[in-house]
Amino acid sequence: MSVNTLYSDPYFSVFPNERIHPNTQRGLLNAYHCCGSETTPSAVIFCEANFTKTDGKTANGLIRYSPKFRILSVIDSEKAGLDSGYALDGEYNGIPIYATLTESIEMAREIPEYFIFGIAPSSGVLSTLDRQVILEAIDLGMNIVNGLHEYLNDDPEFIAASRKAGVVILDIRKPRAKRNLQIFSGIVNHVDCPKVVIMGTDCAIGKRTTATKLVSALRQYGLNVVLVATGQTGVIQGAPYSLVMDSIPAQFCPGELEAVIYRAYEVEKPDIIIIEGQGALSHPAFSTSSMIIRGSAPNAVILQHAPCRKYRVDFDEMAMPSVASEIELIELFAHAKVIGISINHEGMEEKEIDECIYHYSKEFAIPVTDALKRSSKFLVHMVLRAFPKLAKQIPILQ
Amino acid sequence: MSVNTLYSDPYFSVFPNERIHPNTQRGLLNAYHCCGSETTPSAVIFCEANFTKTDGKTANGLIRYSPKFRILSVIDSEKAGLDSGYALDGEYNGIPIYATLTESIEMAREIPEYFIFGIAPSSGVLSTLDRQVILEAIDLGMNIVNGLHEYLNDDPEFIAASRKAGVVILDIRKPRAKRNLQIFSGIVNHVDCPKVVIMGTDCAIGKRTTATKLVSALRQYGLNVVLVATGQTGVIQGAPYSLVMDSIPAQFCPGELEAVIYRAYEVEKPDIIIIEGQGALSHPAFSTSSMIIRGSAPNAVILQHAPCRKYRVDFDEMAMPSVASEIELIELFAHAKVIGISINHEGMEEKEIDECIYHYSKEFAIPVTDALKRSSKFLVHMVLRAFPKLAKQIPILQ
Repeated sequence: MSVNTLYSDPYFSVFPNERIHPNTQRGLLNAYHCCGSETTPSAVIFCEANFTKTDGKTANGLIRYSPKFRILSVIDSEKAGLDSGYALDGEYNGIPIYATLTESIEMAREIPEYFIFGIAPSSGVLSTLDRQVILEAIDLGMNIVNGLHEYLNDDPEFIAASRKAGVVILDIRKPRAKRNLQIFSGIVNHVDCPKVVIMGTDCAIGKRTTATKLVSALRQYGLNVVLVATGQTGVIQGAPYSLVMDSIPAQFCPGELEAVIYRAYEVEKPDIIIIEGQGALSHPAFSTSSMIIRGSAPNAVILQHAPCRKYRVDFDEMAMPSVASEIELIELFAHAKVIGISINHEGMEEKEIDECIYHYSKEFAIPVTDALKRSSKFLVHMVLRAFPKLAKQIPILQ
Repeated sequence: MSVNTLYSDPYFSVFPNERIHPNTQRGLLNAYHCCGSETTPSAVIFCEANFTKTDGKTANGLIRYSPKFRILSVIDSEKAGLDSGYALDGEYNGIPIYATLTESIEMAREIPEYFIFGIAPSSGVLSTLDRQVILEAIDLGMNIVNGLHEYLNDDPEFIAASRKAGVVILDIRKPRAKRNLQIFSGIVNHVDCPKVVIMGTDCAIGKRTTATKLVSALRQYGLNVVLVATGQTGVIQGAPYSLVMDSIPAQFCPGELEAVIYRAYEVEKPDIIIIEGQGALSHPAFSTSSMIIRGSAPNAVILQHAPCRKYRVDFDEMAMPSVASEIELIELFAHAKVIGISINHEGMEEKEIDECIYHYSKEFAIPVTDALKRSSKFLVHMVLRAFPKLAKQIPILQ
């Protein structure tokens, strides 16, 4: 995928600001884009020692898809000199990786408008070195996009630096003010189009990627689809209906998600709503998906799984769950069926992917695909098989 | 239960401040009590229009048990003139209910040291009238105990008023600073004593009461028991190991609870740890229990249920789950057995309680009791039956 095609998705230009749920400060992001892609602001992504890795998943996601920013380069001294697309997916994208911020600016011959902190450590907080480079970027006049739990706008040092430099810090994860947070009311049950959650058996397993592929494919069939993003990468990518679930106080998680979904339903009158899951319902550490299920009251679930992953990411002692056990848990907890499985092929040969699809299809009697290695039509098939009425709304299938 | 016996529990005087998890500001509460119960500060509980009701559950809990405050009166104009113990449980406790703060102060002939906001609306935020009476209390020189999601220490009007009056506002729900919040690590699995969570089929159904009764009874048998409180009432009551789960950002909920439990385990070397659940695992709006299960990794669960309750509290359209469906969900989600059922007898005659205990025992083949109407020995039996090793540590059972 070339850089230019990243900005061709019409979905992101048709939403005026006022349609955007005010759950984060990203209204400001959108203000830069109302005039179209020519004014897309430039940005560098800082991902020192983590690009292509799990904790670099925000950077990885933005390199694959970033309609809101024109990415000039990635900063990661361990992969400096490589093309970022090649390093990530084996396909050149023309966005280089540099070792330092200085080098990145020198090579770009401009100061990028935004410095995106592209590391998402499980701790959610900044190291001393991270702080230094962010302050350096501020001093150079760059605006900051911060997806961590630590809000830079609450930190006196960052407040002072940003005021002095006249730049803006966007704390992407910051939820709305407490008095605006909503309790779940059940109104989401009045949404009369299908709501499908993309769940997974672990973190960083491809839920968002599968959701993006599915949404894009369903739109190609002419369906009106809303994607509800629930993590910081989706918010930075500019998803019009989004919130960062894991930074919201537990009591308000289902209600805030419900509010976003219901708003999307009212405004867009979609044929279907796809919701990005987080972590895994069975995950001992990251079970925000339980709140996502309650807040979205899904009609169906698609499960993302990596057959060759032995242990949960970042937790060497936690064995991965089986597909069967995860499906059983999801179906009981959500009162909804798992309608398909998408596999993450990490560690697998091409032949093994085919074998896995064959065996899972047989064992679970539902469609199975690999969202990245197989045609997106298989993802569409999963959905249309579960919701046959939707197929009747697609002219080319009549 | 008389007022004096409220303060006789030795459990609350043996914990120096430094043993208390710094998850809330209640260290300050404890500072008032290190010298014993003579210095227990006086307090009034504000519970206008809600005393004895569901949204008054913080006030109700404190009237039943408040080792940290000497409660002078309750303010609720709808029940003014009644004895609060009689209004709540049909047993006199000598704590009157007055219509206004002014009346409460006049009758007490002193300005109480603390004004406890004893309403816990599901929205978690203050009405205009609530704000007025809190400001009035501040102007009169009273310190404020606030259990709402809305932190008064973040509000310019309350900050200014409290500074002017020289009083302290305790925002009980406020979690630790973001950079101190912990991600779940799995260390809770190294706790080698039983961990039992008291879950329920709804909010405000008696989980904390059953937990308190069970803990008290197990201690009477000489066991070293830790109670981990997970809601604002338990924190205001002064539970040494406690946190308000539902105000913590979702990502940190399991880790923060794990940290409290592990700390209790290391410091107290308990025979058993009892953990208070919140809401219900099946509850569409309040599913913090999912985080409580992940953070505590329980060995067993006791389920609290109200057989005559038809709909979830505050949600007229949400039918109550069946005991069978809740047990199935809990056991699959928690990988732990439900070892007993405690019934809440609201709406039941004495005979119906017996019949219900009989039928549930037969249907589920586990011990069943009513924690308030039956001897606490039945609660102890549930636990000893599930963990026979514990019985060997009780001299009188040998």
